[in-house]
Amino acid sequence: MKKSYSIEEINSYLNGELIGTTTHLIEGPEQLQAAKSHHISFIGSIKYAKYWAASKACAAIVNDNLTMEPIDNKAIIKVKNADLAMAKVLELFNPPAPEFTIDIHPTAVIHDTAIIGKGCKIGANCYVGKDVELGDNVILYPNVCVFDETVIGENTVVWSGTVIRERCIIGSHCIFHTNVSIGADGFGYRPSEDGRGLVKIPQIGNVIIGHYVEIGANSCVDRAKFSSTIIGDGCKIDNLVQIAHNSVMGRFCIMAGHSGLAGSVTLGDGVIIGGSASIKDHTTIHSGATVGAGSGVVGDVEAGKTVLGYPAQDARDMLKQWVAMRQFMKKQ
Amino acid sequence: MKKSYSIEEINSYLNGELIGTTTHLIEGPEQLQAAKSHHISFIGSIKYAKYWAASKACAAIVNDNLTMEPIDNKAIIKVKNADLAMAKVLELFNPPAPEFTIDIHPTAVIHDTAIIGKGCKIGANCYVGKDVELGDNVILYPNVCVFDETVIGENTVVWSGTVIRERCIIGSHCIFHTNVSIGADGFGYRPSEDGRGLVKIPQIGNVIIGHYVEIGANSCVDRAKFSSTIIGDGCKIDNLVQIAHNSVMGRFCIMAGHSGLAGSVTLGDGVIIGGSASIKDHTTIHSGATVGAGSGVVGDVEAGKTVLGYPAQDARDMLKQWVAMRQFMKKQ
Amino acid sequence: MKKSYSIEEINSYLNGELIGTTTHLIEGPEQLQAAKSHHISFIGSIKYAKYWAASKACAAIVNDNLTMEPIDNKAIIKVKNADLAMAKVLELFNPPAPEFTIDIHPTAVIHDTAIIGKGCKIGANCYVGKDVELGDNVILYPNVCVFDETVIGENTVVWSGTVIRERCIIGSHCIFHTNVSIGADGFGYRPSEDGRGLVKIPQIGNVIIGHYVEIGANSCVDRAKFSSTIIGDGCKIDNLVQIAHNSVMGRFCIMAGHSGLAGSVTLGDGVIIGGSASIKDHTTIHSGATVGAGSGVVGDVEAGKTVLGYPAQDARDMLKQWVAMRQFMKKQ
Repeated sequence: MKKSYSIEEINSYLNGELIGTTTHLIEGPEQLQAAKSHHISFIGSIKYAKYWAASKACAAIVNDNLTMEPIDNKAIIKVKNADLAMAKVLELFNPPAPEFTIDIHPTAVIHDTAIIGKGCKIGANCYVGKDVELGDNVILYPNVCVFDETVIGENTVVWSGTVIRERCIIGSHCIFHTNVSIGADGFGYRPSEDGRGLVKIPQIGNVIIGHYVEIGANSCVDRAKFSSTIIGDGCKIDNLVQIAHNSVMGRFCIMAGHSGLAGSVTLGDGVIIGGSASIKDHTTIHSGATVGAGSGVVGDVEAGKTVLGYPAQDARDMLKQWVAMRQFMKKQ
Repeated sequence: MKKSYSIEEINSYLNGELIGTTTHLIEGPEQLQAAKSHHISFIGSIKYAKYWAASKACAAIVNDNLTMEPIDNKAIIKVKNADLAMAKVLELFNPPAPEFTIDIHPTAVIHDTAIIGKGCKIGANCYVGKDVELGDNVILYPNVCVFDETVIGENTVVWSGTVIRERCIIGSHCIFHTNVSIGADGFGYRPSEDGRGLVKIPQIGNVIIGHYVEIGANSCVDRAKFSSTIIGDGCKIDNLVQIAHNSVMGRFCIMAGHSGLAGSVTLGDGVIIGGSASIKDHTTIHSGATVGAGSGVVGDVEAGKTVLGYPAQDARDMLKQWVAMRQFMKKQ
Repeated sequence: MKKSYSIEEINSYLNGELIGTTTHLIEGPEQLQAAKSHHISFIGSIKYAKYWAASKACAAIVNDNLTMEPIDNKAIIKVKNADLAMAKVLELFNPPAPEFTIDIHPTAVIHDTAIIGKGCKIGANCYVGKDVELGDNVILYPNVCVFDETVIGENTVVWSGTVIRERCIIGSHCIFHTNVSIGADGFGYRPSEDGRGLVKIPQIGNVIIGHYVEIGANSCVDRAKFSSTIIGDGCKIDNLVQIAHNSVMGRFCIMAGHSGLAGSVTLGDGVIIGGSASIKDHTTIHSGATVGAGSGVVGDVEAGKTVLGYPAQDARDMLKQWVAMRQFMKKQ
């Protein structure tokens, strides 16, 4: 966070329209009300505009449909899309990742047969099993475990506490956050011979994860009963998400926190699953569909459709039902 | 996965009826559409039968009520129950677990007073506390922590990242997957003297887990306030499940992903809790009852009953209500 | 658990009214039906009174509105509030925490620049990064990771498997249970330039946690996009809870298991969130409000109000609706 920029530098970087100016050097972004004079802030809608006069921020990035005035030594940068500009400013001020004092820490336990790419960093107390292959520039933060024969693509980053079980295939440029579980056994049992107990069904498949996939803290992706549980390129998965065995996700799907796929669910491309939503086993959700937060999906969902509620149905119908139900019940 | 079998060997193992034959050696199971010529596949219902002709699988295990024809160099094995046969085939091809290069890794930190049974394997960077007792053949994969005075029965397997707190009693032949938390403090507070804050109530009990219990990745079983949180023999618990303090589960219960028991819940034997279902504190669910996925149970459930919805009620009633509600609201 | 007390000592400690007496020394609390003669038990309501005669417990703490008789060599202690007395008895018998054989374990990897307070204990295989500051008497159990520039206040206890990412600020007297994730990246993406993919928005903020905060096993608190995700003093968070980026919690809030705050949620002081409840992003729940278990809150909640259901509404209205709906549907 040592870097600082003049207002002109930031305006030039954003290709914006500078109104007024400030002599302050900008050291980072902050919300209008918490900002100090070395901060830049954002005003994406009219309802936040009222905080500008009192804010200590020396600058604000503003949607160009808003009429905002610069104030003495406080500048305005007008842009088409303040949200997008904010994302770019965050990239500018993104502090460096935690430092490795040494590339491969001597306390890491790495099997002789493991293949470690160029530029890899392996933190303290990691475990890397037999025949593991790490592509170039893979980063394992301290206390990561990667088991036998798993392959991880280049530039993938794995945070502490995450465990990747044996024989999984992980793409490049992925990010796995802390305490993620990849490749634990799927949940499968059969009645015992005497009908009074449960016998474990071996889960001999694996997990295959594409490129540019991000998986949130404490989320789980189970290995397949046989064949593979698959997560397509560019999928983004939030914290505490459950992906059960033999589910298959297309590309660029989003799953928000606490959501889950039961076994053998299929998602097309670009599917969005809201927080705490659950999808019944063997269900297919086609490309571009959206499942509202808290929903329970018990049947296939058509491409592009938005569903809501439990059991989930067309979102507009569900919203109408909720309104009608509330009004009707008031009369009872 | 090096093992391969002739079609005759597999047919004999399954005690099936072989129709046609194949010269291919079978190296593992695969889904019909992804299979190659060294794979065996499964056809449990008529809707998958159409994929058989185009599948590259050299063999398929088929329910004997289906009429399937062998094709040139592709064999059919007819069995009474293709699902059960599949489970047996998975056992046949179950690859060995990750290898330990040394039984007790030198980086594991094991207290002098711990008693380690014969044949135990303790991976890199494990921690085993004071007076812990591990039965014979217990396996702790790398980065497992077991705290003081905890006892683990023979042949139990604990995967990486799992933490078992002090004074717990774990049965034999259990499997705890990655990043499980056993014995963390129950969630209990009382108002502070001035009524404006919260004071922690000590959680001085423990967790007792029976034999043949499996607990999924990132699940939690809290220690009791006093006395014990108890999980009976043969219970199977999926990923991201919460079992709060002083809950007591009978034998052979199943809890699916994201489900949870609030404090002091009692389950009988053979209770099934669907995914994302929650059970209110101090509730009893009697033996053989089933709670549908996504339900919220707020009162006791009779033995053998199936409940659904929130608040959960008889499942047939709930389903009827959902249908009636949808139809009625359409008329509004 | 070696300590034992006479009935007179415990009565004096609780400032109760002793009825009858017992010669047994009391070694701990136990439920009436599981108790042995060295146990003390609790009777908070009349429905448990019937178990007293058959219980082997040598003593029971009883609410003074209950009429209970001592039995030969079994004493009664009458108190105003048996629950509160129980909490005090638990404090009396609270066994010591797991032992550290050495304060700073030699296998812990601690950066040269880290500042470690007096009386800190750091367990085996911990990782403490660059410029971390631990206040006096901080305890890190084995396999904890604390990343660069994070500050932890005095007397805070961090259990195994927990990871605290860089640049976070943690108060004093906190307890973080096992496998907690603090400071993982918030969940934020923007469409890629070609509109067909997703680009990660850097999450450059941090997490600030107050004093006396307890966070349950496998829970997650994400770092802010910029600025801070904030948890106020005295908040108590159960297991498997999700707190997304830029959420702000006041003081003494309670979040039960599996509950979650989506991004930029604001909680006032003393807010109670029931188990499995979810709060939509950018929502404000004002001080003293309660959200019922399993609810989905999609709009702001007034101070002191109790809401229930999905979408959540006034709890009494919701309960009435549920009853009316059930009755109405029965007639359909």
